[in-house]
Amino acid sequence: MKKQKNTHIFSSYVIGIDYGSDSVRALLVNAETGAEIATSVFEYPRWKKGLYCDSAKNQFRQHPLDYIEGLEFTVKNVLNKKPKIAQQVKAISIDTTGSTPVAVDKTGTPLALLSGFTENSNAMFVLWKDHTAVHESDEINQLCRTWGGIDFTKYSGGIYSSEWFWAKVLHIVREDEKVEQAAYSWVEHCDWLPAMLTGKTDPDQLKRSRCAAGHKALWHKDWNGFPPVDFLIKLDPRLIKVSESLNNNTITADVSIGNLSSEWADRLGLNTSVVVGGGAFDAHVGAVGGEIKPYYISKVIGTSTCDMLIAPNSETKNILVRGICGQVDGSIIPGMEGMEAGQSAFGDIYAWFKKLLMWPIENILASSEIVDVATREKLVAELSSKIIVKLTDEAQKIPVTESGIIALDWMNGRRTPDADQNLKGIISGLTLGSDAPRIFRALVEATAFGSKAIIDRFISEGVRIDGVVALGGVAKKSPFVMQVLADVLNMPIQVVSSEQTCALGATMFAAVVAGIHPDLTEAQNKMGQGFDKTYYPLLESVEKYKLLYNQYFSLGNLIEKNKT
Amino acid sequence: MKKQKNTHIFSSYVIGIDYGSDSVRALLVNAETGAEIATSVFEYPRWKKGLYCDSAKNQFRQHPLDYIEGLEFTVKNVLNKKPKIAQQVKAISIDTTGSTPVAVDKTGTPLALLSGFTENSNAMFVLWKDHTAVHESDEINQLCRTWGGIDFTKYSGGIYSSEWFWAKVLHIVREDEKVEQAAYSWVEHCDWLPAMLTGKTDPDQLKRSRCAAGHKALWHKDWNGFPPVDFLIKLDPRLIKVSESLNNNTITADVSIGNLSSEWADRLGLNTSVVVGGGAFDAHVGAVGGEIKPYYISKVIGTSTCDMLIAPNSETKNILVRGICGQVDGSIIPGMEGMEAGQSAFGDIYAWFKKLLMWPIENILASSEIVDVATREKLVAELSSKIIVKLTDEAQKIPVTESGIIALDWMNGRRTPDADQNLKGIISGLTLGSDAPRIFRALVEATAFGSKAIIDRFISEGVRIDGVVALGGVAKKSPFVMQVLADVLNMPIQVVSSEQTCALGATMFAAVVAGIHPDLTEAQNKMGQGFDKTYYPLLESVEKYKLLYNQYFSLGNLIEKNKT
Repeated sequence: MKKQKNTHIFSSYVIGIDYGSDSVRALLVNAETGAEIATSVFEYPRWKKGLYCDSAKNQFRQHPLDYIEGLEFTVKNVLNKKPKIAQQVKAISIDTTGSTPVAVDKTGTPLALLSGFTENSNAMFVLWKDHTAVHESDEINQLCRTWGGIDFTKYSGGIYSSEWFWAKVLHIVREDEKVEQAAYSWVEHCDWLPAMLTGKTDPDQLKRSRCAAGHKALWHKDWNGFPPVDFLIKLDPRLIKVSESLNNNTITADVSIGNLSSEWADRLGLNTSVVVGGGAFDAHVGAVGGEIKPYYISKVIGTSTCDMLIAPNSETKNILVRGICGQVDGSIIPGMEGMEAGQSAFGDIYAWFKKLLMWPIENILASSEIVDVATREKLVAELSSKIIVKLTDEAQKIPVTESGIIALDWMNGRRTPDADQNLKGIISGLTLGSDAPRIFRALVEATAFGSKAIIDRFISEGVRIDGVVALGGVAKKSPFVMQVLADVLNMPIQVVSSEQTCALGATMFAAVVAGIHPDLTEAQNKMGQGFDKTYYPLLESVEKYKLLYNQYFSLGNLIEKNKT
Repeated sequence: MKKQKNTHIFSSYVIGIDYGSDSVRALLVNAETGAEIATSVFEYPRWKKGLYCDSAKNQFRQHPLDYIEGLEFTVKNVLNKKPKIAQQVKAISIDTTGSTPVAVDKTGTPLALLSGFTENSNAMFVLWKDHTAVHESDEINQLCRTWGGIDFTKYSGGIYSSEWFWAKVLHIVREDEKVEQAAYSWVEHCDWLPAMLTGKTDPDQLKRSRCAAGHKALWHKDWNGFPPVDFLIKLDPRLIKVSESLNNNTITADVSIGNLSSEWADRLGLNTSVVVGGGAFDAHVGAVGGEIKPYYISKVIGTSTCDMLIAPNSETKNILVRGICGQVDGSIIPGMEGMEAGQSAFGDIYAWFKKLLMWPIENILASSEIVDVATREKLVAELSSKIIVKLTDEAQKIPVTESGIIALDWMNGRRTPDADQNLKGIISGLTLGSDAPRIFRALVEATAFGSKAIIDRFISEGVRIDGVVALGGVAKKSPFVMQVLADVLNMPIQVVSSEQTCALGATMFAAVVAGIHPDLTEAQNKMGQGFDKTYYPLLESVEKYKLLYNQYFSLGNLIEKNKT
């Protein structure tokens, strides 16, 4: 870990606010050093109760009050821990999940905050992982390919997702006439919060995030902004109103939206000199917090992965990477092309295998009459906590290539390269001797092969890759997985120290917005928390994994070409 | 179960002796009704200790003394239970595993019974599942295809197995010069025992079993018996001696070998009027005991399966079924073409899945400190005994086609159709929601699809199939598996009542040999124990399984065509 520098009594401070899927975190840091002063986390209360969601339909909605209450609680909480610092806070920056849009009225107020809509899930934020708009995304893809004009998905890997802005808007304007009538525009979570804090929510004036617009709403400078109205009208005439409300100017997250409104300065206990930065998506801001640098893949490894890469605009002018999730000028760091890819399941695959092995324990042991209830619960908890550890111990001992098992990591579809949600996972090469550690090892290898497929795609499309920086839970917790990954990728992997890179990244943006650092590179240098550990590839394994990767690649090709 | 008829005091009795892999069983029945009078089982003592075997090398040998001791023990044991019946025993017939050959001297004595060879595993019976002759079977296959003459594997599905006679003989004559020098001939277990009981062991006079010779030693009437010496010499000149010792006349198992020798009559407590039938393989004799009838598949379903079919010679003259294990005139029932196919794993696949799910229990729970050793053992035993039952309960509730999972049942290679030991198992169509019961259901379906592939092959090669008769542990124990099988095959499946069909089949042969019944069909009618239960296909499932089978078939084709 980077050595903490001394903090001065007259230092400047900034707050980063990170809205995740389940909770919001505020982080108060010394803007010169990045040293953490205080942090606070708030779980969304309505979300926690499961309100407005229907997981069987993949409907996931969040109420704006969850966000507002979380903002007040966490900011006041960090300030309460260090009351003397409140007056030295210079800026706030915010990151959120996305695409997480909401319908707003003419004043920019989310409809769920208006009478008559407070319990209407269509009037709330449509969370990134909501998949209710599957048909609509199909329609958008179809139209992009056939309407005779530009294929607006060209910078989004050629495939528009049901998780993204236009699909979600289209779905709800069709499904809910009342919302459609009341909606003046639609706003991303990351745009609405800074607008609210500065009192500048008027949709016509709203400065929209380059990151959100470019990655999720088909905005690109090649066609001067969002897709034109003649395209949107073909999807549905009800989109005209939304189209007209969108301002084609977008901003990068190092730009100030304005000062805290007096209302919000009062509510938070700050003063109105505090500057609010433009919002951006959590993964991108987290990559900045994790010290993303040009031509390094910043890989956030958790249940799934988000793989980000930046490269100077000047060097990527003629590069269009096929089959990634998107590439947008300035979406991660201004002046750089921000590219995003990802694996739709990574740690989730290990969790799936654990759940499979837990089945007898949860379905037989948990109701055994041989031991009492308290003992059973202890045993179930012990097994649950030890399975992955024990599997890892055993899997590590198995020589590479020994098991002959090859798995495909598509248990949750494939995000990149070449998104295809219809693909599924496979475990092949099974014999009667294929035991749990061997299968676990094959699953770990499969997730690493999925990572390699992404890196290979960047390289084959002309983007060089110099190394990997890893963030997220799996990166921190599993040396075995990280070593396999380094061996498969044949690249060293640096693991980021900070446990809260998103909130830290937001503070870096805030520090730039406040003028404390001239740009993000400098903010990263000064505020970054450095790296915990580097995994180096082992030559002997590298050669063996090349063979296994060929088998993975061939099997994947075979299955993909022949799917019905 | 067939109603038992009254037995008369002056009835005739016969003994069937069934040599399995681990033990031998004698069954004393009333020859008129098949009613069981007494039975006795003896486990091979040397085998049980693991002597002469090396499972890492797949070397499995059995000492002739294990067989001799078992014969004496079990026959005397059944007679002791009903001492008055000994004088009414008319015949003995024997079935054994196979191909299980042994090297014998000029007198027909297995070398391991001679001084200097008693501890030499190469001088013992080479058990059916011994795989030490893998290279030799490759060589035989290669030569059959290239030597310019007849391909002698044409009635063995086109592939000679390392489990069969010539491969094993070739392996040992090369590996063990002492055995090679001492061996005058080689004899199958099923041929040696009747010869020994009748004192007619002279190899030159030995009447060899049609079943063993035809299915495992490339005997066929098209080339007047075993492969000619000019073929065998090309494999190895050391085979000349064996070749010269083989009599090309073979017999079916309804033929008498002769009477009990006075030595063996004394040793067993029987008289020398007892007739001894020709030997045959256990599965075939078991199919007879299970009332095999023309154009019905007799499917022995255990860890693997053996699928047998008989059809009148007159109707199969021009039929050669590609890719099955063998077809031999009279190998199962005289006058009928006996055909054999099989799946190399069936119940073994369920056992594999159970073992996978037991992994955390055996590796974590079994050493937990939360409970004492005795309680742990009880818990492990409870889980082990309940897993398959609980999985079955849950799997039954899942609608056909719901899971989207398709598995290939090749975890132990593929025996039929088209033997290929290099194929492996696959589980495809996995999502993060694929739980243990769904995977278990897919594995059950895969084993049923493997069965259908065999039946489809018979049909496509011009052999009609009228139904299925099921025998063996899985058939008796799992109504769920049997129902899926009936639905997938779209055929009713009758489950045989008898738990000891091999020994019962041997008694049927003995009754024919003794002249108590004119032929095996009559013996089956009179002595058969009938059927427990019939599973009928459910129309709704049948249609759905047709779709799933197409997916299984396509996936299999894809994998097979592209294997490296």
